[in-house]
Amino acid sequence: MPTINVTDDVTLEGDAPLQGQLYQQLSERILDGRYTPASRLPSSRQLAADLGVSRNTVNAVYDQLKAEGFVQGQGGRGIFVHPDLHRRMPPWSAGTRPGTASTHRETRPLARPRPAALPSVPAMPPAFQKRALKVSQDASLPFQPGLPDLEAFPIRAWNRLLHHQESRRSLQGYGDVQGYRPLRQAVAGYLRASRGVRCTEDQVIITQGAQQALSLIADVFLGPGDRVFCENPGYRGARYALGRHGHELVPAPLKHQALDVDALPALGPARLLSCTPTHQYPMGGVLDLSQRLALVDWARRHDAWIIEDDYDSEFHFHHKPFAAVQGLVDQAPVLYVGSFSKTLLPALRVGYLVVPEPVVAPVLWAKQVSGGETPLLIQSTIAEFIDSGQFQRHLRRMRQLYRDKWQAFQDRVHRHLNGAFTPVAESAGMHLVLEATADLDDVALHQWLRHHRLGSTPLSAHFLGTEHRPGLVMGFASANEHHMDEATRAMARWVSEPR
Amino acid sequence: MPTINVTDDVTLEGDAPLQGQLYQQLSERILDGRYTPASRLPSSRQLAADLGVSRNTVNAVYDQLKAEGFVQGQGGRGIFVHPDLHRRMPPWSAGTRPGTASTHRETRPLARPRPAALPSVPAMPPAFQKRALKVSQDASLPFQPGLPDLEAFPIRAWNRLLHHQESRRSLQGYGDVQGYRPLRQAVAGYLRASRGVRCTEDQVIITQGAQQALSLIADVFLGPGDRVFCENPGYRGARYALGRHGHELVPAPLKHQALDVDALPALGPARLLSCTPTHQYPMGGVLDLSQRLALVDWARRHDAWIIEDDYDSEFHFHHKPFAAVQGLVDQAPVLYVGSFSKTLLPALRVGYLVVPEPVVAPVLWAKQVSGGETPLLIQSTIAEFIDSGQFQRHLRRMRQLYRDKWQAFQDRVHRHLNGAFTPVAESAGMHLVLEATADLDDVALHQWLRHHRLGSTPLSAHFLGTEHRPGLVMGFASANEHHMDEATRAMARWVSEPR
Repeated sequence: MPTINVTDDVTLEGDAPLQGQLYQQLSERILDGRYTPASRLPSSRQLAADLGVSRNTVNAVYDQLKAEGFVQGQGGRGIFVHPDLHRRMPPWSAGTRPGTASTHRETRPLARPRPAALPSVPAMPPAFQKRALKVSQDASLPFQPGLPDLEAFPIRAWNRLLHHQESRRSLQGYGDVQGYRPLRQAVAGYLRASRGVRCTEDQVIITQGAQQALSLIADVFLGPGDRVFCENPGYRGARYALGRHGHELVPAPLKHQALDVDALPALGPARLLSCTPTHQYPMGGVLDLSQRLALVDWARRHDAWIIEDDYDSEFHFHHKPFAAVQGLVDQAPVLYVGSFSKTLLPALRVGYLVVPEPVVAPVLWAKQVSGGETPLLIQSTIAEFIDSGQFQRHLRRMRQLYRDKWQAFQDRVHRHLNGAFTPVAESAGMHLVLEATADLDDVALHQWLRHHRLGSTPLSAHFLGTEHRPGLVMGFASANEHHMDEATRAMARWVSEPR
Repeated sequence: MPTINVTDDVTLEGDAPLQGQLYQQLSERILDGRYTPASRLPSSRQLAADLGVSRNTVNAVYDQLKAEGFVQGQGGRGIFVHPDLHRRMPPWSAGTRPGTASTHRETRPLARPRPAALPSVPAMPPAFQKRALKVSQDASLPFQPGLPDLEAFPIRAWNRLLHHQESRRSLQGYGDVQGYRPLRQAVAGYLRASRGVRCTEDQVIITQGAQQALSLIADVFLGPGDRVFCENPGYRGARYALGRHGHELVPAPLKHQALDVDALPALGPARLLSCTPTHQYPMGGVLDLSQRLALVDWARRHDAWIIEDDYDSEFHFHHKPFAAVQGLVDQAPVLYVGSFSKTLLPALRVGYLVVPEPVVAPVLWAKQVSGGETPLLIQSTIAEFIDSGQFQRHLRRMRQLYRDKWQAFQDRVHRHLNGAFTPVAESAGMHLVLEATADLDDVALHQWLRHHRLGSTPLSAHFLGTEHRPGLVMGFASANEHHMDEATRAMARWVSEPR
């Protein structure tokens, strides 16, 4: 068998290492079938001389190709394209490695079929398709619900704490899957004092924001045939997380803008109920004591767990926030969820889940298996921020700031939009629900605002099923007065235009 | 109805704010049934005078209790415990709020049953129970597989980059669920150049280490009846992630310490095959070109996807690492997984997943719903570390360091353990597999080392099913020469002792 004429076929040029170029081109020609299995390559001495490179270079390439199985040495007879590739080389193997010049494509001796299709690709869930088409979010826009005022964050003080932690060896390896203990202690202390939660740090699990907490709950609690009750309207993130394994989501109605606890028994069995008792999302109602007791009673009677999402209880303006349902009684059937995304920064991606002791181990297993641990540096910095008292001071400042913004935004709404939208008074904290007084396409309005680089969520998107009311959910925490003028005027224009 | 004698029943003391103490004690007495529904509380004027506190304090507490539904004003007739609580107060409500003195427990007028049991608690999966009993890991110990040498990490240079990024406003809000674009660009560039991966940044998804990548793959790809092939022995993290929804895990045998591709067709249908083609975990074998082509061919014929876990390809000592299977052909049926836990720091919790374009959207949906996003500050610092060339320099240094450690550890093994254990030569990179030459209880040996504050994993724990070989997987990257002496001597003692 004649030796392959490598020399005329290889082009070494430019700044890339010669060894890499030679390896690349030889391996490509073997892979695309140009150099057929069992054919002979020139000796390293010969090829080095022909190409004008060192013999070491050619030897290194030949060694690599041998090791990988492209070529084979046959005693003293020389180097051959591996004969096994005959039976292995499949019809679909045509293709070019990245970074390889394609000048040789035209001269390829064998006509090969196009690359094969991929194996079957998973389908998207219908919820996503619907959502992706209609409601496109840009979470950095002013008025985006859930976005805090980033300009008010004490970034210098925060960075000082970061610098305390950044070089600690113990924060560089693998951490506790439950979360960094000093942070769990700080969270437990904060929740006991400020939210009336009954817990020790052993019941606290640090999560990647509230979303991971909800997702872990779905992993751990839901089995075949289990049903999940969700407030309607309610928080979409919870519905996505709790419905992601295909379980039935049952809409639970509201009364006075809060969960209608008396309606629950008629809805049948439930494994989980997701709710926001201290500030219904998005409508803003609060469950009073009598309803809270009835809720716990319902859960106990129905062997159901309550997911208490306490998402912005830090920012109530009129009273101190109501104590958490979790702390109402001993052994409450409650999985308590919170997050630092709104009280500190969304980019930290840190939240927490507080569960009764027997639930800790299953949740940790689900967390470990799904890999959602928070970087230790972030956890330790938050712990120091809380322990030093700066967290409580920051919350106080934000409460004042958001109250002012809430007032300012309501003023604008009354001034520019009076008649077309009614602000739902209970919705405060960081967002305001503007219910449309006449029927309108709130998705189109949301897109119109988006076009003006202003965030919002259509109220209709918060409903499960077909019934809905139109309006907008607008997060005022991230908006300044200029944005408020802009948004309310843009809405007024949109409403007044014939359509 | 007589007015409740609150004054004799309330104790205000210590440094805590009086308002909080009064609220706490009144709410507790209402909840525990001591102050019965519809009974009357003293006027705020009266109570303030009796307790010697300001009337504003009492009014604030009464307002809060009214808002929450503990009490009710009845026109001019006074303040009453809310009458609705009669029908709501369940038999299980006995209990004390956190921080409340329990001195009143003895005088509680109504004997109440103990708190009710929790709703049913989810069971732990059998895999965890077995594992938790036998193999307890402390991921910070020397010899723990997967732990890099933290002392060799250039923490000062790293922190300088962190300081470049730490105050950027754009890194404080919500990020792109796919990952920070400059990091995706840096990862794509690195993988193209160093691993032969064919991708753009639009195919790269930043994950929380390799574990989240594997978990997302399970979420997205596995439906009813789907089967998953796993190398046996193999990486336990992959088995846990891919088996977490209860799918059948089929052990795929090895040949020459690498996946036996020829054995796959006989195993029946598969949706996913999880493998480590460039460095089998833990045994260390490498698939040659012929086997790689056969693997791709098998996947195409069986409508299966290959998960290519390229976990430590950066640390091959003899040759350059073989190029990834992903880049072998166009449109390879490969989901490529990698991580910075070993090349940078475990605490960063950052990995990546590279998938064909049509797979990107379903994975992003699963990622968004399960909440696993990486803090932007960490992502941007890694991007700068790569772009500045420091990543490649760090890898070169680590490759040299780990080669020296590998040699040093092998020397110790031969010196102190010769005969009892055989180092599996192919297992290099960051760990060495020591196969026991005689049958032994490798879990007990693992625990013995653990007792000496030395890490390891029993080789038997890497097997699916009942067949297994005894030995230890030892990660030498995190060990110094002193640890190496200590570990090999401790193992020699353990083996020599009668048992």
